[in-house]
Amino acid sequence: MSVRSGSGRVAFSASRQTNHEPTDMSNRTMIIYFDNILVNVGTHFDQESSVFLAPRRGVYSFNFHVVKAYNRQTIQVSLMLNGWPMISAFAGDQDVTREAATNAGLVIMEKGDKAYLRLERGNLMGGWKYSTFSGFLVFPL
Amino acid sequence: MSVRSGSGRVAFSASRQTNHEPTDMSNRTMIIYFDNILVNVGTHFDQESSVFLAPRRGVYSFNFHVVKAYNRQTIQVSLMLNGWPMISAFAGDQDVTREAATNAGLVIMEKGDKAYLRLERGNLMGGWKYSTFSGFLVFPL
Amino acid sequence: MSVRSGSGRVAFSASRQTNHEPTDMSNRTMIIYFDNILVNVGTHFDQESSVFLAPRRGVYSFNFHVVKAYNRQTIQVSLMLNGWPMISAFAGDQDVTREAATNAGLVIMEKGDKAYLRLERGNLMGGWKYSTFSGFLVFPL
Repeated sequence: MSVRSGSGRVAFSASRQTNHEPTDMSNRTMIIYFDNILVNVGTHFDQESSVFLAPRRGVYSFNFHVVKAYNRQTIQVSLMLNGWPMISAFAGDQDVTREAATNAGLVIMEKGDKAYLRLERGNLMGGWKYSTFSGFLVFPL
Repeated sequence: MSVRSGSGRVAFSASRQTNHEPTDMSNRTMIIYFDNILVNVGTHFDQESSVFLAPRRGVYSFNFHVVKAYNRQTIQVSLMLNGWPMISAFAGDQDVTREAATNAGLVIMEKGDKAYLRLERGNLMGGWKYSTFSGFLVFPL
Repeated sequence: MSVRSGSGRVAFSASRQTNHEPTDMSNRTMIIYFDNILVNVGTHFDQESSVFLAPRRGVYSFNFHVVKAYNRQTIQVSLMLNGWPMISAFAGDQDVTREAATNAGLVIMEKGDKAYLRLERGNLMGGWKYSTFSGFLVFPL
């Protein structure tokens, strides 16, 4: 049996299609959320919370690009695993209209682990249209 | 049988090794094309047109970095699926020599679907040496 | 048998968790090295040298983000395959605190081939905290 058949097929990809309204992002959680789902095989990415829930133990690949627009503040975005930052990215140019804080990497997740993007510093009040967040199971462990 | 054997093995990766001559890019199509093939398993990426043709239905991963050089214009680059922009990226810093418009994501493609990069805004007249465009079949559907 | 089971499972992901001390990086090799291992299935990534050694012939995916900090020099970073640059990236903004030289792509590796990141131009004397380097076997050939 292939590890990629059945429960081995796990993938999601989300993007931000509209500009952000300030009230859209909770100032409490600072989780970066998405309004457009490109792929959600297994439906392990919950669009409303924009949290990915690992359905099984394995190596997962993640990739994110958070685009700030019309905003001179430096932002720091982290890929969080169960509340801990695994990988961070920055965008800090004051003179460009749109700039992405981007990074990527692999992490080992246990069944039930959660992955999401968190705004650690700065704000996204100008919106984060064109941002993306993707992940897939590379192989189970 | 593994989904990664036989027709499950689909991957391409291309880069730009030389600087662009203005006449090299069609002003009609604005498709960003590549002169160096790193990987082309299944030969589903056509170097001349720089279009990837999906050989089967599945989840595909794409990743692009389009580097503008010696050019103060803002560029917008989109990953196109059959003529529709799926994911966009920007490079707009006026004061750096080389800067990449980069993004990545997963998309579901049907057999025969086409994916390519399109310059949506700005120009690449200084060339796009060091740009890359890669994709692979994560798993078939 | 699945290509992803047994020796088909190859993946690594590394990050830089502390700022660099100038003496940490050899001025002789200019190889960019990492102090934190997120994933190392098969242990084909050697942390001390920060070189990945391919255990078998196949298509490999690589992704890197090298973050320069407090440094006004332009840097050029290349993904090296056995001493040859395959893919390059740049960071050259003088006015931001942290900026990433980032690129990604697929390469075909033979058993025993080496992949690593090399600083081709500029320096990283301010450190490269938050940098990442990841790779995995997409499928064997």
